[in-house]
Amino acid sequence: MKSYRLDSFSGIEALTLHEEPRPEVGRGQVRVRVRASSLNYRDLVLAEGTYPAKQRTIPHSDAAGEVEAVGADVRRFKVGDRVMNYFYANWVGGVRRHVPEQYMAEHDGWLAEYRVVDAEALVAMPAHLSFEEAAALPCAGVTAWNAVAGVRPGHTVVTQGTGGVSVFALQFAKLLGGRVIVTTSTREKRARLRELGADEVIDSAATPDWASVVRELTDGYGADRIINLGGASSLEQSIAAIAQRGQVSLVGALGPGGPVDFFKLFWSQATYETIGVGSRSDTEEMNRAIAAKQLRPVLDRVFEFHEAKAAWQYFAKRKVFGKVVVRH
Amino acid sequence: MKSYRLDSFSGIEALTLHEEPRPEVGRGQVRVRVRASSLNYRDLVLAEGTYPAKQRTIPHSDAAGEVEAVGADVRRFKVGDRVMNYFYANWVGGVRRHVPEQYMAEHDGWLAEYRVVDAEALVAMPAHLSFEEAAALPCAGVTAWNAVAGVRPGHTVVTQGTGGVSVFALQFAKLLGGRVIVTTSTREKRARLRELGADEVIDSAATPDWASVVRELTDGYGADRIINLGGASSLEQSIAAIAQRGQVSLVGALGPGGPVDFFKLFWSQATYETIGVGSRSDTEEMNRAIAAKQLRPVLDRVFEFHEAKAAWQYFAKRKVFGKVVVRH
Amino acid sequence: MKSYRLDSFSGIEALTLHEEPRPEVGRGQVRVRVRASSLNYRDLVLAEGTYPAKQRTIPHSDAAGEVEAVGADVRRFKVGDRVMNYFYANWVGGVRRHVPEQYMAEHDGWLAEYRVVDAEALVAMPAHLSFEEAAALPCAGVTAWNAVAGVRPGHTVVTQGTGGVSVFALQFAKLLGGRVIVTTSTREKRARLRELGADEVIDSAATPDWASVVRELTDGYGADRIINLGGASSLEQSIAAIAQRGQVSLVGALGPGGPVDFFKLFWSQATYETIGVGSRSDTEEMNRAIAAKQLRPVLDRVFEFHEAKAAWQYFAKRKVFGKVVVRH
Amino acid sequence: MKSYRLDSFSGIEALTLHEEPRPEVGRGQVRVRVRASSLNYRDLVLAEGTYPAKQRTIPHSDAAGEVEAVGADVRRFKVGDRVMNYFYANWVGGVRRHVPEQYMAEHDGWLAEYRVVDAEALVAMPAHLSFEEAAALPCAGVTAWNAVAGVRPGHTVVTQGTGGVSVFALQFAKLLGGRVIVTTSTREKRARLRELGADEVIDSAATPDWASVVRELTDGYGADRIINLGGASSLEQSIAAIAQRGQVSLVGALGPGGPVDFFKLFWSQATYETIGVGSRSDTEEMNRAIAAKQLRPVLDRVFEFHEAKAAWQYFAKRKVFGKVVVRH
Repeated sequence: MKSYRLDSFSGIEALTLHEEPRPEVGRGQVRVRVRASSLNYRDLVLAEGTYPAKQRTIPHSDAAGEVEAVGADVRRFKVGDRVMNYFYANWVGGVRRHVPEQYMAEHDGWLAEYRVVDAEALVAMPAHLSFEEAAALPCAGVTAWNAVAGVRPGHTVVTQGTGGVSVFALQFAKLLGGRVIVTTSTREKRARLRELGADEVIDSAATPDWASVVRELTDGYGADRIINLGGASSLEQSIAAIAQRGQVSLVGALGPGGPVDFFKLFWSQATYETIGVGSRSDTEEMNRAIAAKQLRPVLDRVFEFHEAKAAWQYFAKRKVFGKVVVRH
Repeated sequence: MKSYRLDSFSGIEALTLHEEPRPEVGRGQVRVRVRASSLNYRDLVLAEGTYPAKQRTIPHSDAAGEVEAVGADVRRFKVGDRVMNYFYANWVGGVRRHVPEQYMAEHDGWLAEYRVVDAEALVAMPAHLSFEEAAALPCAGVTAWNAVAGVRPGHTVVTQGTGGVSVFALQFAKLLGGRVIVTTSTREKRARLRELGADEVIDSAATPDWASVVRELTDGYGADRIINLGGASSLEQSIAAIAQRGQVSLVGALGPGGPVDFFKLFWSQATYETIGVGSRSDTEEMNRAIAAKQLRPVLDRVFEFHEAKAAWQYFAKRKVFGKVVVRH
Repeated sequence: MKSYRLDSFSGIEALTLHEEPRPEVGRGQVRVRVRASSLNYRDLVLAEGTYPAKQRTIPHSDAAGEVEAVGADVRRFKVGDRVMNYFYANWVGGVRRHVPEQYMAEHDGWLAEYRVVDAEALVAMPAHLSFEEAAALPCAGVTAWNAVAGVRPGHTVVTQGTGGVSVFALQFAKLLGGRVIVTTSTREKRARLRELGADEVIDSAATPDWASVVRELTDGYGADRIINLGGASSLEQSIAAIAQRGQVSLVGALGPGGPVDFFKLFWSQATYETIGVGSRSDTEEMNRAIAAKQLRPVLDRVFEFHEAKAAWQYFAKRKVFGKVVVRH
Repeated sequence: MKSYRLDSFSGIEALTLHEEPRPEVGRGQVRVRVRASSLNYRDLVLAEGTYPAKQRTIPHSDAAGEVEAVGADVRRFKVGDRVMNYFYANWVGGVRRHVPEQYMAEHDGWLAEYRVVDAEALVAMPAHLSFEEAAALPCAGVTAWNAVAGVRPGHTVVTQGTGGVSVFALQFAKLLGGRVIVTTSTREKRARLRELGADEVIDSAATPDWASVVRELTDGYGADRIINLGGASSLEQSIAAIAQRGQVSLVGALGPGGPVDFFKLFWSQATYETIGVGSRSDTEEMNRAIAAKQLRPVLDRVFEFHEAKAAWQYFAKRKVFGKVVVRH
């Protein structure tokens, strides 16, 4: 079968196509004919060696495909089922004390024709989605789902930019009844954000101090929930824009590091919650909502399997609106 | 000023129009020019003397109006503010250990031209609502709000009939992203329920065993939330229709009493939560959501102040769709 | 190896000792040398055929032992580890929508010398416990743990009798800072309950209306949490004794069925939560607490493996104080 | 009556004894004969003018005393009741969207012989406490109560130093079943901390990198809850010592400000919750626990009313173990 591996940690150039034997299923396992996988920022930093990674890993933590073979004792799935993975390999649900096992860290990822994994590592795809759409969900979707958890009708939610997590956060926050404000530095994205349900769009290029606009739009209260996607630099604005007893969901390390002022943090009288994707149970609950509301993930662009490197180069420019997917 | 009082506990006939002095405001108090009040089932049973009540009480626990005078030290409101009451007189929020004070029990109700209450007993009306609409909210609205609290997108919610609580529960459950199934014995109400967002309507006259229909509509899982409005008789169906770890919200004593089977209760593996309206804080959160989503309460019919007894007679037939309101 | 199986559903007499091949481990599995297992009421009813059960099942849902062999890909345990099972076979944690798989229903139980199970089906034993003590935990311990979850210092907790769940509930409620009232019909158990931390013991034989005593002991408020263990008959008292907004935890079907009055249920203004044991994550959290507080399960009596039938006969009298255990 | 006021914002020297008329009660109000009040760090910074304050305010936000007169319509208290205030003047409970009114900001504080406040601004004292002990509770007690909320048996809690909040946090965390680690730079306080239930004491003078000790004491997991009391400087250690999905409770601005590293914050995978004292409902729940467990606040030293300035000078050295109280 064909697979891509990171032959070194020298960046995108390390991504190399290989031919290797199709893996066999053992007891409790499932072989998936991977039909689509998607890119995350983690793939890029991992390829540069600045993130803990397995040597010569297959990249892509997110995928969807068909069950092609099942091992002994598998009752969860049968051949032909349309499945997707969840982000971790062994965090089904409940209290998480250990860092769960991750694709590309302890296990190969999904940018390959076939993958054999434990049946417990998979969930059913929402029935109305294509493989490409389902492959968009495991990391960005569940992160957004958990980042907006607890939002209620009447709450104001701020999300930043148009990356995968931000667009999902917009979609999920609307399902929850929230009023959503999106910040973007790209004027052309305005109309598309409105179509997706954004109640307000703030031009963060024109108004770097967008927190003051959020205050105005909320009668001075500030936003009940802010999805912080720009690291330390956006956190300063998030702190200034958050309501008392509101929650800033700290997502990923997509933006720059840097210092945060302690007193500003404290006097905001808010909660700062780090989001670490989520469990299989979270993924299943998200899928239930997606199925019930017939929601569709927003795909920026779909590349073919042989174009995987081009997909990475495209994604590395970080100009996306939604997810970048590879069709296998 | 004019007021209605229950001169005895002999039922609707006890409702009598009086002329009495306009009450004066003391420190911390507000005088409200009542503009609308609404009826609840509690008014009817209380008039029959089967519910704890103040002698010669003014009925109606729910109202909206204008602040007409404020006492010393009142900072919460000013003359001209459009306000409504919340259901209790002294349960602002937090843990509730005592039965809070209630209108018609410890305090006169609102079916009068003027009422003087503590400034703390009032909240601001959602700005887009008429007085008639706001007067629909304190009991039925907040009960429904708390009965559906915790519903998430993808959850199935069942509500029973077209009374005030049921219609609000339908509206709020839709705001929360739920899929709503309504049971009704009146075929003609179907279309109106669909307009309000009902995903499914079950004819409970044709299908008294509506629980089996709910099971079919939910791939056998049952509903995640059921608002039980018909007492013991509907509870049997609610138990049969609830999902494992789902919640039956037990609302009021509108239906008949009677026995519930212990083993059925236990084996449902669900939670049975009694709903006791809610606090001022709950009312404010509900109003925030109503304002943000520009939601409008459904009024079955509005009577004039001099028609109050006719309003009671009409309401006593219990054929309503939404709330019955008196304009003052 | 030796094992006991229920050769029919004719009650205790159906329990028969067998000799059968020692099971082999597959990928992802672990072979446990079972060292102790414990009895639950479910074993008895299941032996009578009134509960869904596997044909010719090995009984006992709860056990502890040593890992004796591990299959391929097992990272969770190694040979020599001291382990116990959790109650279900496949509910690790998170939202539970399906009835999880159970021992004696979908899988053989533990009353055997060896058992092979998925590595995911086991958890580490608290280090300070004997195998006999650890075998007491999976069903009764976790049920009690979840039944008292949320109790805080200052809360009053009522538990009923001296069965396994009740004694664990007493112990856990004390860890949580609760004030614990125990009802018992056996005067002699008083002193032992006091030693275990009971703040009050009510003689339910002398005072069948023990709810009134609970009201007196709580300045009229009622108890914040009641663990209902006696089915419909004790539920009547539980309803009368529960505080507003308190919680009655409905545990098992140990007592008789029967009718519950709807209006009493509603007017209690409490929550009725059915307890269905718990997940692996709940079991691990309970074990953490047990280890941290060096708590020891209360064993009524330990029988030897060859005395298993005598253990059942003893247990069937239901006069126990704590758990009945079989040493393998 | 006698009262102290801050005649200017020039620090401790501004504290001046005055003679002024005893205030009269209005409708809904209560006059308290103040018997004790306690000092908080906020008094000191407020006296320096670096914190929002009322001109010529009476200081001390925390007090206990006897009800000496009640106005019309007061049902909550009667003459002779032993009462204490809660920290805010108007946050009874429920969702907090506004900054509640505070003593010394919108209202005079309590360092006076008499104070007239709304009956709603007071709660009953735990019956077993002296006035001096009860006066220790409103700010530091409730802050600690909320800072440890959610701790369960088996959890490890770290608290820093021996100030009022820290000692209460130790006491409350023990009630909740936690294992408590205290950091202190003063070797002599070790024994006293152990007596109060501390499981471990870390000498933070000898081991400035105390986070590594916490990691060792928790098998590498880190602490489940850390009460951060030293501002930005201790936060660095708190971040290094917190467990995944644990919570750092950010209390007050007692320590220095300064920068916090964004990536460290994010990669801790914990929650950072700012604590803003709490509501009246929180205060009542705390008092219930204190009464049930007969817990006694730790008083460092009690000064007489005429020694108020000496009390401030003593407190300003910040070498305390527990609370500093003034007897009125």
